[in-house]
Amino acid sequence: MKTVSDIGERKLIELASLIYQEHHESVDFTDDCAILPINDEYFLASTDMISEKTHIPKGMKPWQIGWFATAINLSDIAAKGGHPLGVLLSIGMPRSFHESSFLELIKGASSCANRYDTKIIGGDTKENDHLVLCGTALGKVKKEHFLSRKGANPGDVVAVTGELGKAATGFYELQNEIKQGNINCLCEPTPRLFEGISLAETKKIHCCMDLSDGLSSSLYQLADLNNVGFQIHYELLPISTQLRSYAKKDRALDESYLALHFGGDYELVLTTSKDHISNLQEVLDQYHTPLTVIGEVISEQKIYIDDNMKKKIVLPNLGYENFTDKT
Amino acid sequence: MKTVSDIGERKLIELASLIYQEHHESVDFTDDCAILPINDEYFLASTDMISEKTHIPKGMKPWQIGWFATAINLSDIAAKGGHPLGVLLSIGMPRSFHESSFLELIKGASSCANRYDTKIIGGDTKENDHLVLCGTALGKVKKEHFLSRKGANPGDVVAVTGELGKAATGFYELQNEIKQGNINCLCEPTPRLFEGISLAETKKIHCCMDLSDGLSSSLYQLADLNNVGFQIHYELLPISTQLRSYAKKDRALDESYLALHFGGDYELVLTTSKDHISNLQEVLDQYHTPLTVIGEVISEQKIYIDDNMKKKIVLPNLGYENFTDKT
Repeated sequence: MKTVSDIGERKLIELASLIYQEHHESVDFTDDCAILPINDEYFLASTDMISEKTHIPKGMKPWQIGWFATAINLSDIAAKGGHPLGVLLSIGMPRSFHESSFLELIKGASSCANRYDTKIIGGDTKENDHLVLCGTALGKVKKEHFLSRKGANPGDVVAVTGELGKAATGFYELQNEIKQGNINCLCEPTPRLFEGISLAETKKIHCCMDLSDGLSSSLYQLADLNNVGFQIHYELLPISTQLRSYAKKDRALDESYLALHFGGDYELVLTTSKDHISNLQEVLDQYHTPLTVIGEVISEQKIYIDDNMKKKIVLPNLGYENFTDKT
Repeated sequence: MKTVSDIGERKLIELASLIYQEHHESVDFTDDCAILPINDEYFLASTDMISEKTHIPKGMKPWQIGWFATAINLSDIAAKGGHPLGVLLSIGMPRSFHESSFLELIKGASSCANRYDTKIIGGDTKENDHLVLCGTALGKVKKEHFLSRKGANPGDVVAVTGELGKAATGFYELQNEIKQGNINCLCEPTPRLFEGISLAETKKIHCCMDLSDGLSSSLYQLADLNNVGFQIHYELLPISTQLRSYAKKDRALDESYLALHFGGDYELVLTTSKDHISNLQEVLDQYHTPLTVIGEVISEQKIYIDDNMKKKIVLPNLGYENFTDKT
């Protein structure tokens, strides 16, 4: 009998979508954010589950777990250019879970929501034999400002906000017990909500998504949805300075692997016309957030990358996928 | 160090609410459904998590688990008089979970949504070492039709839709491997969505909630929120005929305990003026759903019940509460 591990997360979602769409063809499951049209706006709802066993690194503190669960859900609203309306947070935990840890977790969730001018508006607490959290972020966006995953055209440039590999740097520090302050980049990600809203209002973004599972994974999803490919230039990637520095000292640390395939940065990747880049960067200057062009959209449905040696190779699709051995 | 088991679910929610409200006093956590005002409507969002280890009885089939997770979330929308807008369903499962079970689960969720004229609009799939589901139901209701948990007045009558103890009957059949068809009442609950909408439109309901954790638990919550008490008459309770019949044959089966404290019926309990009852029953006739007066609201903040022998006693609060030994 086939198991979900034989199938992998993306195929499972595809199979589920077909069943869900039997009676409701109009529902679009190519996006992990649900979109409900209400008058001249879209109402947005996105849900993400994390579990102690698979998604919460050892060493993450309860406050950070609460922040993390809230932040990753808000990131899905950010990728749509949405204004957050609130977050629901369900917590499954064992009876032996400490009251103080529970309260710290709640404080972390509340702090993250407050940081983004929103609030925790509901939730659920249930018994479970280990910690599992499920958040749902709600948001809204004017239809004319909505950022879609679809819309990439050959000739567009591809750009990312912020730096790549920050979460990987944090993971490296956590594993090696290094206290350089980057563990926060892994455990307290900062969804690009304000940036998403401002970018959306320019109406100059052709397509957009967040980088939860890593750059390669997101690019493969965008390529598939838009029937296009990408040409990425490794030397343009805004790789975390700290990651580069660790890579120089530690030969076991694979800089390019971590920059391309390790998830958790929650930056936005977008395509737009080359002409718009300087204007978009100006818009992001108010948040001190860089926007970096990393390549182009091409019509051939393949993803190429110029490697360190400027040699053009096909980018492997190694981003995180649940139920598979990809990391 | 105190654990969550020392505190219990209701106190934990109270503590979390205080933290969440530090920056947002206006958010009301006395309801397990989040309520966002948008123009002349309330937007509703409610989330519920269930886990194989604590909330899914052994013997429940994957299709039923999908139905159940969807139904219990829709029940929260029903209790507000809300029209459902869609359901998000997150599924955590081990790698060894069968593809066929996953697809059956999805079909059950989809069937439940379709049954109530709504749809699954999003979700998440994640690795977990056992099955855990988290649903979020979205809905909307005109402000003038909104059913609140607050509004009970001394002198009101208390009424419930449908029958009590149906889920308990199903649990009894499941445990004793009896095939009389009532296992569905436990595993495929039918939220009173259409009834909730119709009742709400009468504007004659003073307060309302669903019976997820059992009648006694709901009455204690309503008493607390409204600073009132209740006088319940045992002989008026619409106890499942099948449960009564099993209780006659099996002395170990405690009919009154199951009717009063076993959760899972997902009926609505409401208070209203005595004069409105016949009109409300007429409204529910289109669904063939009975509405039964079971007692009165009293000003003394205690909950009394006339027992089988017509003796007035205080109703114990034995409904299900997570993290405690109450069942």
